[in-house]
Amino acid sequence: MNMFGWTIEDWLLAYRCGLKPSDLLSKLLDQQSLSDVAWIYLIDHAHLEWQLAELDRRHGDVANCDELFSVLPLYGVPFAVKDNIDIEGLPTTAACPEFAYKATKSAFVIERLTAAGAIVIGKTNLDQFACGLVGIHSPYGAVPNTFNSKYISGGSSSGSASVVARGIVPFALGSDTAGSGRIPAGLNNIVGLKPTPGAISGSGVVKACRTLDCVSIFATTVREARTVFAVATGYDSDDCYSLSSPSGIPSAPPQHLCFAVPAVIDFNGDQQSSSAFDAALKQFEAQGATLKPIDFDVFEQVSALLYNGPWVAERYAAIEPFIEAHSEAIRPVTRNILFRAKKYSAADAFNAFYKLSELKRKADGFMEGVDALIVPTAVTHFTIAEVEADPISPINILGKYSNFVNLLGYSALSVPAGFRADSLPFGVTLIARGWHDSILAQIGERWQEHVAPSRGATRLPFKKTS
Amino acid sequence: MNMFGWTIEDWLLAYRCGLKPSDLLSKLLDQQSLSDVAWIYLIDHAHLEWQLAELDRRHGDVANCDELFSVLPLYGVPFAVKDNIDIEGLPTTAACPEFAYKATKSAFVIERLTAAGAIVIGKTNLDQFACGLVGIHSPYGAVPNTFNSKYISGGSSSGSASVVARGIVPFALGSDTAGSGRIPAGLNNIVGLKPTPGAISGSGVVKACRTLDCVSIFATTVREARTVFAVATGYDSDDCYSLSSPSGIPSAPPQHLCFAVPAVIDFNGDQQSSSAFDAALKQFEAQGATLKPIDFDVFEQVSALLYNGPWVAERYAAIEPFIEAHSEAIRPVTRNILFRAKKYSAADAFNAFYKLSELKRKADGFMEGVDALIVPTAVTHFTIAEVEADPISPINILGKYSNFVNLLGYSALSVPAGFRADSLPFGVTLIARGWHDSILAQIGERWQEHVAPSRGATRLPFKKTS
Repeated sequence: MNMFGWTIEDWLLAYRCGLKPSDLLSKLLDQQSLSDVAWIYLIDHAHLEWQLAELDRRHGDVANCDELFSVLPLYGVPFAVKDNIDIEGLPTTAACPEFAYKATKSAFVIERLTAAGAIVIGKTNLDQFACGLVGIHSPYGAVPNTFNSKYISGGSSSGSASVVARGIVPFALGSDTAGSGRIPAGLNNIVGLKPTPGAISGSGVVKACRTLDCVSIFATTVREARTVFAVATGYDSDDCYSLSSPSGIPSAPPQHLCFAVPAVIDFNGDQQSSSAFDAALKQFEAQGATLKPIDFDVFEQVSALLYNGPWVAERYAAIEPFIEAHSEAIRPVTRNILFRAKKYSAADAFNAFYKLSELKRKADGFMEGVDALIVPTAVTHFTIAEVEADPISPINILGKYSNFVNLLGYSALSVPAGFRADSLPFGVTLIARGWHDSILAQIGERWQEHVAPSRGATRLPFKKTS
Repeated sequence: MNMFGWTIEDWLLAYRCGLKPSDLLSKLLDQQSLSDVAWIYLIDHAHLEWQLAELDRRHGDVANCDELFSVLPLYGVPFAVKDNIDIEGLPTTAACPEFAYKATKSAFVIERLTAAGAIVIGKTNLDQFACGLVGIHSPYGAVPNTFNSKYISGGSSSGSASVVARGIVPFALGSDTAGSGRIPAGLNNIVGLKPTPGAISGSGVVKACRTLDCVSIFATTVREARTVFAVATGYDSDDCYSLSSPSGIPSAPPQHLCFAVPAVIDFNGDQQSSSAFDAALKQFEAQGATLKPIDFDVFEQVSALLYNGPWVAERYAAIEPFIEAHSEAIRPVTRNILFRAKKYSAADAFNAFYKLSELKRKADGFMEGVDALIVPTAVTHFTIAEVEADPISPINILGKYSNFVNLLGYSALSVPAGFRADSLPFGVTLIARGWHDSILAQIGERWQEHVAPSRGATRLPFKKTS
């Protein structure tokens, strides 16, 4: 049995056919190795058995698979978890071994997923403390792109994107503050669902910028990401940034879609990405969508606030005691970002909030009357060597089209959008106001039904539902 | 004709009887003098004539007074404005002559009120830059209590409270960041309506703490305050902290009211205020309300954040260029408060926001299932001499029961609640979650119908509607 590239549906189908979770998952685990730079930690067989015993305990007496899967929609489905999210009994490193601790309690989102039957396989690599959009700033090694190992995977959720793109697990959790749940999706031909801030609890997640951090979901299809999101979302009374879904949000997008598109996009001179974006837009138009060019300046100004403003102080505040005691344990690039925090005063912070509030007013205006804003997920592919030579520029270049989303409280979904002439993948991100996660997912599903992309780096086909 | 103590209804009645705005208002103006420490600026007759011409222009051809008053519900009603709110063509001082500028545009709230027919009479004294809860920190003089001039009026909206309490105008605008729209109401036997943050636009108001500032309303009856609020509230697209009223707020309070009351209150040893509060609670019970003692610790912790946390940086940020260029123009107490801002970093600010978010969760829990929280508006009366001798302690003592409200995004209404043994007035504040302004007003109206308090310092009776 080869579970390569199995979707959630494939896993459930196998169980429906009588295969046992213990057999399949044990085999999956045996196929993994920590020599794979995407993993920081893999569970052992004892931990797998413990999870399976819990799974047995959960489903009790059910008559058949239909009933079982309706109670446990992720029954026996393996997944990977970015190593800044706590799992009881496992170490959390945030890609900093000196920072590592053994979690005494699983994150709220992990509890929700395991309560729905999902099985954790391991913890994945990331840019240290989730700082960076590149995936190479980790003492556990640089995670290569799944299409061409000379290129970066993107980050910070590099390992989670990698194991999904390579068909090892059907879904994985990332986190997204500045774009970490979207950039690696775009660079590896997978789906990155970045929910509305507050829609998935942050309890048990190492903080980067607590007011902006979102747990995100990677999968190869929007359908799967949506299934996982439906399980993962939910109000958490212990996380004061967790929110309940408000009323009054439409339940489905209109038939005829209208998308805002930046009138001018800075592809950093990358003609291949520029052409890929134009081709994607033409496909949206071929599906009947209307495109509305907008002045992107307001969104760029919001993006600029994130790393060139007091929000870096959130990253510093999150781990201040550790940084001050162990500054040598922190990688130079990460330290460079974190220590910028010290130059900002509380007055600077308030002035930046005022600026953000003003910009949000304008940004909300641009979002009125459109179903989503479409941007390239990543405007270019960088090689690992390029990022090693100049670590900061790529963060700024990639961040321009991703940083603004969480500052504005918006939802986003990165979907694969074909390949460039050099065979590297290209992705687009659909962005909408807060709590439009389901609307975006439905738009993304329509898109995938239309373009039927190959899934991740597996070369396996997308299966249409119709 | 003596307009002393006229309510809004009295002014409209006079016009209904054929009296002319120009005659009455001109006379009212002649009765005022800048030797009254409550005023910083009085309009001249030319300005009055200009306003009356505008008023004429507004009402056009209306058949009768009923029609006129339905279009212009504040037709010819004089009011006073705290001198940190802009009125086109008049100086705004914020009680700092060196800071003063001639406003080129009226504040949004002023435009709404004058569009409804109200006539500005003058600008009122305040604690400099709206810093302080006492009403004595102004180069224009200390505003005395309207019942006993040895005592403070309370602040920072001292002048506005004073002119309403003395029956000069039926209503006045204040502003409230830490309690400035409530404390002077409590100390002068008038009503202070402190709306939900964002319910009244802050455009054209000198910022104190921009994320917390609320324009507030003083009147001698809740009925009038509610009339003014209905005109003043409204979304302002130019103020990014202005909000639209959400849906789903009940339109009326239940017949049987339940109030949360702090289990322990620190009256700073003032037995008279303590007795007055007990008497007020007994009256609420006599009206059929249930009282529910609560642990007030969470609210006190929120209050402590305001002056002992990074929010002082907002006050500093608001006028930073002026402060740095003219520190000698700023009164020592104000400077002392403002310069504390410098010690807070952006990381401190974020840590305080996290703390506030956690406390708000808990505070919201206490507000569930109760119609309002009742606290003493001011726990004691200070003499002017006492505050001159120790300027900071009174701010902390009074602030404990007022500072938390805007940080939590709540609405509040201070109502007169009888007199102490020494004949000084006592007030209670009803506090509810955001957008419960109308609910609070209805509760306040019921209370006033029941206790029928004398109005302000006028000794004039309250007129029941029934």
